[in-house]
Amino acid sequence: MRYFISDLSKYVGERVELKGWVYNYRSSGKIKFLQLRDGTGICQCIFFKGECDENAFEIFKDITQETSVKVTGVVREEPRSPGGYELGAETLEIIAPSVDYPITPKEHGTDYLMNHRHLWIRSKRQHAILRVRSEIVSAIRSFFDGNGFTLTDAPIFTPSACEGTSTLFETQYFDEKAYLSQSGQLYMEATAAAFGKTYCFGPTFRAEKSKTRRHLIEFWMVEPEVAFNDLYDNMELAEQFVEYVVQRTITNRAEELKTLERDVSKLEVIKGPFPRIHYEEAAQMVKKENPDFIIGDDFGGTDETIISSKFDKPVFVHHYPTAVKAFYMKEEPSDPKYSLSVDMLATEGYGELIGGGQREENIEVLKKKIAEHGLNEEDFKWYLDVRRYGSFPHSGFGLGVERTVAWICGIPHIRETIPFPRLYGRNYP
Amino acid sequence: MRYFISDLSKYVGERVELKGWVYNYRSSGKIKFLQLRDGTGICQCIFFKGECDENAFEIFKDITQETSVKVTGVVREEPRSPGGYELGAETLEIIAPSVDYPITPKEHGTDYLMNHRHLWIRSKRQHAILRVRSEIVSAIRSFFDGNGFTLTDAPIFTPSACEGTSTLFETQYFDEKAYLSQSGQLYMEATAAAFGKTYCFGPTFRAEKSKTRRHLIEFWMVEPEVAFNDLYDNMELAEQFVEYVVQRTITNRAEELKTLERDVSKLEVIKGPFPRIHYEEAAQMVKKENPDFIIGDDFGGTDETIISSKFDKPVFVHHYPTAVKAFYMKEEPSDPKYSLSVDMLATEGYGELIGGGQREENIEVLKKKIAEHGLNEEDFKWYLDVRRYGSFPHSGFGLGVERTVAWICGIPHIRETIPFPRLYGRNYP
Repeated sequence: MRYFISDLSKYVGERVELKGWVYNYRSSGKIKFLQLRDGTGICQCIFFKGECDENAFEIFKDITQETSVKVTGVVREEPRSPGGYELGAETLEIIAPSVDYPITPKEHGTDYLMNHRHLWIRSKRQHAILRVRSEIVSAIRSFFDGNGFTLTDAPIFTPSACEGTSTLFETQYFDEKAYLSQSGQLYMEATAAAFGKTYCFGPTFRAEKSKTRRHLIEFWMVEPEVAFNDLYDNMELAEQFVEYVVQRTITNRAEELKTLERDVSKLEVIKGPFPRIHYEEAAQMVKKENPDFIIGDDFGGTDETIISSKFDKPVFVHHYPTAVKAFYMKEEPSDPKYSLSVDMLATEGYGELIGGGQREENIEVLKKKIAEHGLNEEDFKWYLDVRRYGSFPHSGFGLGVERTVAWICGIPHIRETIPFPRLYGRNYP
Repeated sequence: MRYFISDLSKYVGERVELKGWVYNYRSSGKIKFLQLRDGTGICQCIFFKGECDENAFEIFKDITQETSVKVTGVVREEPRSPGGYELGAETLEIIAPSVDYPITPKEHGTDYLMNHRHLWIRSKRQHAILRVRSEIVSAIRSFFDGNGFTLTDAPIFTPSACEGTSTLFETQYFDEKAYLSQSGQLYMEATAAAFGKTYCFGPTFRAEKSKTRRHLIEFWMVEPEVAFNDLYDNMELAEQFVEYVVQRTITNRAEELKTLERDVSKLEVIKGPFPRIHYEEAAQMVKKENPDFIIGDDFGGTDETIISSKFDKPVFVHHYPTAVKAFYMKEEPSDPKYSLSVDMLATEGYGELIGGGQREENIEVLKKKIAEHGLNEEDFKWYLDVRRYGSFPHSGFGLGVERTVAWICGIPHIRETIPFPRLYGRNYP
């Protein structure tokens, strides 16, 4: 029988054996305290002289931070304890030592911590962030699985550098070149015709030589695509989706968000409907506070912050100028200067959470756009087939997992939102 | 209001609008039949002259396989119909044509179908397989999420070619080289110390120049790792896990497995306990039928089939010779010739489903093994830290998703188990 700290409430009054690592410890005369960490929680183990095994005090002298140990004792309720339970400890056994553990309670530089990421994740704060991440990923998948979507994984290896090689990772794929996927969207358009509602969810790669708080080289993205959905259906789906993910996460990870000192009241209000504004309206907002902004351009990070600061819910900005969006974005039929595109900007200055829109379904228009963008039609042969055989209006979007984690956790830098971040200049550990 | 074919049972007697693609059609005097496919199911739409819109018969003349259409009509129960419902059709509208659809009911060669994979997935059989895949992925995640595991995604980019470059994909990662992950295991050993029970689930890559029924270049793998689990705990976990995935899939995807003509009785019995045999016992079994087999060697595909054919449940083979397993496998303390490794072989000749075991936790032994395997200790610096600071016994395994899909679907070739397969010589579409 294996006992975990997260389950202690079930064993009050019972003798259990816990295995884990020493998170903290102190002595006070005839009483010794050991905070035991087992990955599922932290439990205070109290050794009283005379009540515990007589060797325990001797063994206690050898423990250090992160020593792996086995402790037995009786579970009791203790409202003052973190988690609400503690262990009246009886025996202590050292499994393996930990000499000069590199991460101490003192401050360490970021680079040092990133070099010790494999150990840093044991700390309370990193543990909490990654537990939130795990819940967010689970909520994302539950939402789509529960709403009739079929998961259709997009390939990572793709045959052509459709939109230029500047931010693409390239590899030798036997006798040819292959490129690592930056988005599964084009593939989802094909699978939407087969399954109606589809999504992919996997790592994507961008070789960007930028060191910002918002960028990772390797990041996870979920991309739903729905046949016969238009721009407005797409916004409705995105709204329901983000509400679900946020609300489920703050319910299931309340403790972790408390550890992170997240002001959850700012997340409790993330419920539909979300405000929707036309690009022109957003551009006017930006222009007022950033006079250098040129109406017609795409928004930069600070521009997004200007827009989102006006709202306490995520805001949809739709109908971006056709000129700033990708070739596959459908033009607004009543005014082709604008596209049926939409971004969702997070609250609190966290920037773009979602990018998407309605795709061009007319094969002739699409061919023209491919040529206009200087792309090679031959590279899009299979993609054009989706229009050649029973074309259909369709829409979808992509949501970046790491930005969502940063937003929900309320942390400033994306590098802490993934177990082993890959950044410009960092591919270790 | 959007109606889907999978939901028709809710709308009996009601007028609905369906959007999708023509799967099949035929005329018979004053009655016309259209099988409509919308990705969630197929619905027979029946047009009676005099009862439907007068234009419908005229429009019907223009439909072809995979034309996208909108059909309105009244839902009725019809036990003889696939799905149990049909549409008393009223109007028909063509959304977009489909001229000379490349995949017809006649036989096509494999290469032709693979070149048209983006369309082939619309066919009944491929649709069923990928629906099963989606369910299997969901079941895998539910099992771990529901059993206290934390998802800790392993990185795809890894800094060193730890075990040689022969089957590794390499890419230029800014100023250095990076290699695409073949397994997240080493990373999971570090996260197990932080979260107790962890798993990763993502794509992995092997540059193998082999064209077998069982190999993909890009495949998805789930890898759990549990702190303080030994070899036997590991088998128990694997057993519960595989039982859960199989039983949930045959329940939730009964219709798709029927489409695939899968003999589900062979899967209904996949319930623990699974037989467990020592390598030596397995080797004797093989030797009897394959006299060329050398005891002490690893098993090949045909050897695995010999072993698994003796059982109607998956079989664990444990304690492989240390010499044929990776450097991190712990040796059996009572006889270091054997390792605390375990593979699970599927029934019906589907080969290895799971590979795993207990990891070496002694840093000195591990350093010796790294040297013996001709590896560079420097490459394992962070990995050795997991032993340096509070080492702990731990075990885990990896399960390949595509082999599991092939097995549960009962299909001979792995290339149909993933939406866009990557094979030796194939990186398209």
